[in-house]
Amino acid sequence: MERKGADMSFPPVILALPDWIQECCGDPARSFPEAGERLRLAVELARRNVERDTGGPFGAAIFDLATFRLVAAGVNRVIPESCSVAHAETMAIMLAQKRLGTFDLRSAGDFELATSAEPCAMCYGALPWSGIRRLVYGATREDVQAIGFDEGDKPPDWARALEARGIEVVHALLRAEAREALECYRNRNGRIY
Amino acid sequence: MERKGADMSFPPVILALPDWIQECCGDPARSFPEAGERLRLAVELARRNVERDTGGPFGAAIFDLATFRLVAAGVNRVIPESCSVAHAETMAIMLAQKRLGTFDLRSAGDFELATSAEPCAMCYGALPWSGIRRLVYGATREDVQAIGFDEGDKPPDWARALEARGIEVVHALLRAEAREALECYRNRNGRIY
Repeated sequence: MERKGADMSFPPVILALPDWIQECCGDPARSFPEAGERLRLAVELARRNVERDTGGPFGAAIFDLATFRLVAAGVNRVIPESCSVAHAETMAIMLAQKRLGTFDLRSAGDFELATSAEPCAMCYGALPWSGIRRLVYGATREDVQAIGFDEGDKPPDWARALEARGIEVVHALLRAEAREALECYRNRNGRIY
Repeated sequence: MERKGADMSFPPVILALPDWIQECCGDPARSFPEAGERLRLAVELARRNVERDTGGPFGAAIFDLATFRLVAAGVNRVIPESCSVAHAETMAIMLAQKRLGTFDLRSAGDFELATSAEPCAMCYGALPWSGIRRLVYGATREDVQAIGFDEGDKPPDWARALEARGIEVVHALLRAEAREALECYRNRNGRIY
């Protein structure tokens, strides 16, 4: 017992979404049959995350493609959680996997990740491990970089590499709406990192 | 209040290391002045994670390069935590950042990430955001793939891209020892994903 005090102690990592997420996502029985509706929720999450000052200007949502229902949501939590891994996409992936009790969403069905902006290099690398079947994003790399964020170094043919792994990619849907959330962050002088 | 039951509810994501980590890491005052010693701890974490059946055959550790002390440890927790993001490197990064209270380790000093195997595409993408200054790894991509794991699609010049961002990369240190942890996992018919 005496050695205990001298041991390294690592409490669990705890990563939470802001409280307003629940009301933003609404009725869990709601169906989102159109890709535009699904992405619009991700963009709305990004926009509210800026307005509520609860993280960076990025939102994501994972949908079950059999029922078109929302399975998990995510927003960027890097600053509030002191965690560079806590991007909107990774938060949504982790929450969906915890909810379904599997590290591989493919074992539970076909799922889509809708994200307000093109994934950074980390989130891109996370996609094949997550088991999602389709990626839909709004703002492009250029839009993200235009407000000062860094997207990291992805392979130049990143979308083709995902397609080769059986992950469909839908590019720059609702781009103008998605860009607005980014611009809102810049106009508020949100911290760039 | 009546609407509450109908709202989406997302409990926090909780990711924990196995209990044996504390004793494996030992005295927090211990100094690890040699890169080989530091990497050896990461390899030992990988090996024990296999032996204790607490995750995949990967270990990582973050050291303060001013004191050469351990700041955080990580092991692969994908299966036990139902979380594809819970690689050894991301666990160590998240724990170090939580401990130091910052999403950017550069704001707290110079830190090294020692990892038992070459980072996958996700962990590679996570490195620039983490604020680490140096990456040291043991087993190579080929070693990892030889036991059936997928490393994902990194840019071909990934190490140069890190160096361009001010992150030094030390390749394949203690490769033979590091490979042993991988082979131990294969010999036990550990689950490949």
